[in-house]
Amino acid sequence: MKLAMVDDRIASFEELDPVHFDRGIYFGDGVYEVLRSYNGKIFALEQHMQRFAASLAAIRITNMDIATVRERVQRAFQTAGFANAKIYFHVTRGSEPRSHTWKPDLKPNFFLTVSELVDHPEEKVKGIAVCTHPDWRWKRCDIKSLNLLPNILARQDAADRGYDEAILVDDAGFITEGAGSAFFAIIKRALQTAPLSANILPSITRQFVTRAAKNSGLAIEERCLTPQMAASANELFLAVTTKDIVPVVRFDDATIGDGRPGPCTKALMTEFRKFTV
Amino acid sequence: MKLAMVDDRIASFEELDPVHFDRGIYFGDGVYEVLRSYNGKIFALEQHMQRFAASLAAIRITNMDIATVRERVQRAFQTAGFANAKIYFHVTRGSEPRSHTWKPDLKPNFFLTVSELVDHPEEKVKGIAVCTHPDWRWKRCDIKSLNLLPNILARQDAADRGYDEAILVDDAGFITEGAGSAFFAIIKRALQTAPLSANILPSITRQFVTRAAKNSGLAIEERCLTPQMAASANELFLAVTTKDIVPVVRFDDATIGDGRPGPCTKALMTEFRKFTV
Repeated sequence: MKLAMVDDRIASFEELDPVHFDRGIYFGDGVYEVLRSYNGKIFALEQHMQRFAASLAAIRITNMDIATVRERVQRAFQTAGFANAKIYFHVTRGSEPRSHTWKPDLKPNFFLTVSELVDHPEEKVKGIAVCTHPDWRWKRCDIKSLNLLPNILARQDAADRGYDEAILVDDAGFITEGAGSAFFAIIKRALQTAPLSANILPSITRQFVTRAAKNSGLAIEERCLTPQMAASANELFLAVTTKDIVPVVRFDDATIGDGRPGPCTKALMTEFRKFTV
Repeated sequence: MKLAMVDDRIASFEELDPVHFDRGIYFGDGVYEVLRSYNGKIFALEQHMQRFAASLAAIRITNMDIATVRERVQRAFQTAGFANAKIYFHVTRGSEPRSHTWKPDLKPNFFLTVSELVDHPEEKVKGIAVCTHPDWRWKRCDIKSLNLLPNILARQDAADRGYDEAILVDDAGFITEGAGSAFFAIIKRALQTAPLSANILPSITRQFVTRAAKNSGLAIEERCLTPQMAASANELFLAVTTKDIVPVVRFDDATIGDGRPGPCTKALMTEFRKFTV
């Protein structure tokens, strides 16, 4: 008799919630987004929806309507009622007995959480420390997929060593991005970051950082940085949806600038804040 | 108020089964094994347990005892009562609200299924067709992890094009392995396959294929093959736990040998069968 086992308990397939057979857990066969709100308004909702549609298409989940996703996100956000909310959601290809190939008519699963976003102003004032880690990820990091094991292993390794984020370095010796963030340097009043490619997530926050840089009169140079270049940069910072811009004041063993957030980073934070009101 | 949403339904965190918050689905933060039985006996149980222990250690899940896993596998297998069973199980780091870093005392989740294994003797008689696909996987394919999105995308692409398996080719132009199988060639009476590395799963079936090759008097050469070398090989086959040896008679557009399973592959299948009685 076909059966399943959850921890110590034997069960029939039928009595288990279909989530146990989710292809999201079997294969990481799904894509996700994280949004935040500022003062009761979801930030860059349409940009996130557009990226999510691209992720769905890239892994060939064709039967999940973006209008439905948007409606659910807004409804959950409004029901939760947080002024500053963190919204996570994923769509997986659906639940079925484990098989590499999928049934074309499988119904996708949608899952979302909303929680209160707690800002950490001290990070913005003091800056954070980051360390390098080999980039072990797959070759389609432009897809925001649920295959995040290399990301969490790198982040945990960083945390264990007392760092706040892992900065991923590819086989050629170039920085791609953070385990859960985009990475930027200021070198001689130019904003520098790796060009978008299949190895990098097209960060929404990056779009706004770039706009903020233009408004601040900074030059923008897309190029791949080595850890050596980063360690000797004038300023460094991360960009991530939940925290927007976070100054970096330590990079591996190197102190960046005078060990405090630099003037260009502060100017960018000020410009960024204008987008969120 | 913090809340979750499952498909169209809003729910509190508390009313949902913790499996919804499984790090296995958030990050693919888990490892798995697939076993089979022949005639009421689980094949190579200890080898699978050993590899599973290595996978757990590699992703730093430290609080799941292998003796417990073994007992559960055996109990589920005996309860199911299939002579020829397919046993799948995974262990994830556990369930908690989504966070890249994990709590050290998190309780791992165990999930297993047993189903009847249906052999496909026609595949062994006629052979199968495979096609090449870029290897998009991460850099630690020696870990049998739940990050399998590149594998299923490659396999589905193969299926859509009428092939039974995708053979993955790395950036340097060498074959690593199949999307869900190990890959072997017979060239001038030598068994050839890629050497084990971080890019290849240490296949249990491969161990037995190698032993079968020794018993058959074949030389064994571990070296990386290009698609060109494979297409002009005397014979090709796959090895996978659920099917052991499967002859390959078509490789992309090329017919292998005379389009039927070759003599060395047949000899290996005969030798392999001796291990399973």
